[in-house]
Amino acid sequence: MVRAARGYAATSATTPLSLFDFQRRSLRNDDVVIEVLYCGVCHSDLHTTRNNWGNARYPIVPGHEIVGRVKELGAEATRFTVGDYVGVGCMVDSCQHCKTCRNGFEQYCESGATSTYNNTDRHDQSRTQGGYSDQIIVSEKFVLRMPDNLDLKGAAPLLCAGITTYSPLRHWNVGEGSRVAVIGLGGLGHMAIKLASAMGADVTLITRSAGKETDARALGARDVVLSSDVEQMAAAKSRFDLIIDTIPYQHDLNPYVATLDSGGTLVLVGYFGPVEPALNSSPMVSKRKTVAGSFIGGIAETQEMLDFCGKHGITCEIEMIDIQQVNEAFDRMLRSDVKYRFVIDLGSLKSEI
Amino acid sequence: MVRAARGYAATSATTPLSLFDFQRRSLRNDDVVIEVLYCGVCHSDLHTTRNNWGNARYPIVPGHEIVGRVKELGAEATRFTVGDYVGVGCMVDSCQHCKTCRNGFEQYCESGATSTYNNTDRHDQSRTQGGYSDQIIVSEKFVLRMPDNLDLKGAAPLLCAGITTYSPLRHWNVGEGSRVAVIGLGGLGHMAIKLASAMGADVTLITRSAGKETDARALGARDVVLSSDVEQMAAAKSRFDLIIDTIPYQHDLNPYVATLDSGGTLVLVGYFGPVEPALNSSPMVSKRKTVAGSFIGGIAETQEMLDFCGKHGITCEIEMIDIQQVNEAFDRMLRSDVKYRFVIDLGSLKSEI
Ligand SMILES: [Zn+2]
Ligand SMILES: [Zn+2]
Ligand SMILES: [Zn+2]
Ligand SMILES: [Zn+2]
Repeated sequence: MVRAARGYAATSATTPLSLFDFQRRSLRNDDVVIEVLYCGVCHSDLHTTRNNWGNARYPIVPGHEIVGRVKELGAEATRFTVGDYVGVGCMVDSCQHCKTCRNGFEQYCESGATSTYNNTDRHDQSRTQGGYSDQIIVSEKFVLRMPDNLDLKGAAPLLCAGITTYSPLRHWNVGEGSRVAVIGLGGLGHMAIKLASAMGADVTLITRSAGKETDARALGARDVVLSSDVEQMAAAKSRFDLIIDTIPYQHDLNPYVATLDSGGTLVLVGYFGPVEPALNSSPMVSKRKTVAGSFIGGIAETQEMLDFCGKHGITCEIEMIDIQQVNEAFDRMLRSDVKYRFVIDLGSLKSEI
Repeated sequence: MVRAARGYAATSATTPLSLFDFQRRSLRNDDVVIEVLYCGVCHSDLHTTRNNWGNARYPIVPGHEIVGRVKELGAEATRFTVGDYVGVGCMVDSCQHCKTCRNGFEQYCESGATSTYNNTDRHDQSRTQGGYSDQIIVSEKFVLRMPDNLDLKGAAPLLCAGITTYSPLRHWNVGEGSRVAVIGLGGLGHMAIKLASAMGADVTLITRSAGKETDARALGARDVVLSSDVEQMAAAKSRFDLIIDTIPYQHDLNPYVATLDSGGTLVLVGYFGPVEPALNSSPMVSKRKTVAGSFIGGIAETQEMLDFCGKHGITCEIEMIDIQQVNEAFDRMLRSDVKYRFVIDLGSLKSEI
């Protein structure tokens, strides 16, 4: 029995998101029905609904930084109880048996993880729809438990921005004394600073915008380097063990590679596309430097990240909006006019007639 | 008291190497005087003497795959005894106190390791000259002990080709069952195959030349993929944990990145320059793939490599030449007409009047 649901959807690449009544799939035995309370607004929501990646299938209800409350359980779902506060991130399913899934890297599933929206359910071929809606139905294996001490609104963006930066920090063994640079102070960058400093790292923000110093230091950065200032960049030569590069558009990596110490790694988390101008391999070979990418995190790792944030009292800096403001929020996000993440209060959906 | 030495030198970028009488620096307390027996011919020798890297200071006696016999010791040199068979690789000194030196990565010394030739001694500012000569004087800290069961001629190229491929195999934890691809079957590539298979890896050669299959399998490869064959490359998609890319010229990395499994790493060991066509970051981000570089190895690691080769009976496949044939050998090396390394018998120097 399908369920009536309501949300905001894009119906084409050029139309604003608007009220959309649709159906959620029938409840399966391992499912959790979640009343969505809050949902963060991620750049991917904008890119997908505007078909910037060429894979849009309309209508699309975006949203993959979802926090809500369990309101019903499938017959064999045992991990949660009605009333629990839970989260859902960028994926809602994967094959569960390939090597990467078995190793806890569902995001790299060999047959492709099922993304939370704009994708097809592996079992009944229904379309997945995201968190800009009143409810969502997800297999309990892909549902996260929210730490009970965190503000749920500020915790919503942990499900994407948080895990996207936490996973590479952990994978490249950031800890006490690690010298970490974060490029860009947006939704991802501000989380990277908070998480890396909570791990004990000596964190530097590299930014092209003067005037971010006070904010960066308040978030935990010990230093700020202006990427447009040749002298500051030269002074930062060979300084970092790890760089989390959150820039979402094409940019020259070479000046940043120069700030890596030998053995250091630059991790792209926000840019998908050709690396131009050309990366120069010389400093990479002569100093064993590495350029890598990283994509969200596995489910167990996402739970670990949430627990880490609970322990350290970490949430995102957010600006709350009603669902009716989401198109304006997209435009402001494009202008980087948000500190640092919009979060939708889905209660606002109830005012729609 | 400087010492009369004799070797073969380039006196300009365009003249062939020819007989050259010169002086070795005075013996210091920690020095070892080595009678050079054999010296491998590395691509770097050709590049440096022809000034392809723009840093040549003539005259240059090349050679950094040196095997010889200790014939004299400085007053405080204690690690070796006269008569010991020893090796010298790509570097003969480093600062010894920076963090990377202290960690055993002298090759990444923050103030630059002193290369075996075409460089300046850190103490007396004399020019360093390499192993195409009758003797060399090196601080004992940079002298390696040759395993006594290995053929010294075949072991000479271990000092550069061996350690260049051993170091990334070790750093990226190759062991039993690792799926390793080696791109290119030259001096570096054939060593990478031997070393990786001795470590227990499942090794595949990727080559653009048909007809290398028999040789590759004899060296230890279990499979061969023709990079020019679209179907073979497609069948190799997502297959490798680590790729050792020995190609020494500009080439498209993207088809090779496609053959990495999620979490996999491609390591450049032979190419210094712009990565063009542009590297596409999408598969790197979406599957946590990595592109890295690696440069020779530290002194302790080089000794470990020699001991590993001793234990597993590994030497290079070589063609012996007299020093008088070195210019012809350079030309043949440029045409890849060698299986897989030329080694000079320095005894041939004695025939010069
Ligand atoms: Zn997102
Ligand atoms: Zn899977
Ligand atoms: Zn070499
Ligand atoms: Zn040093």
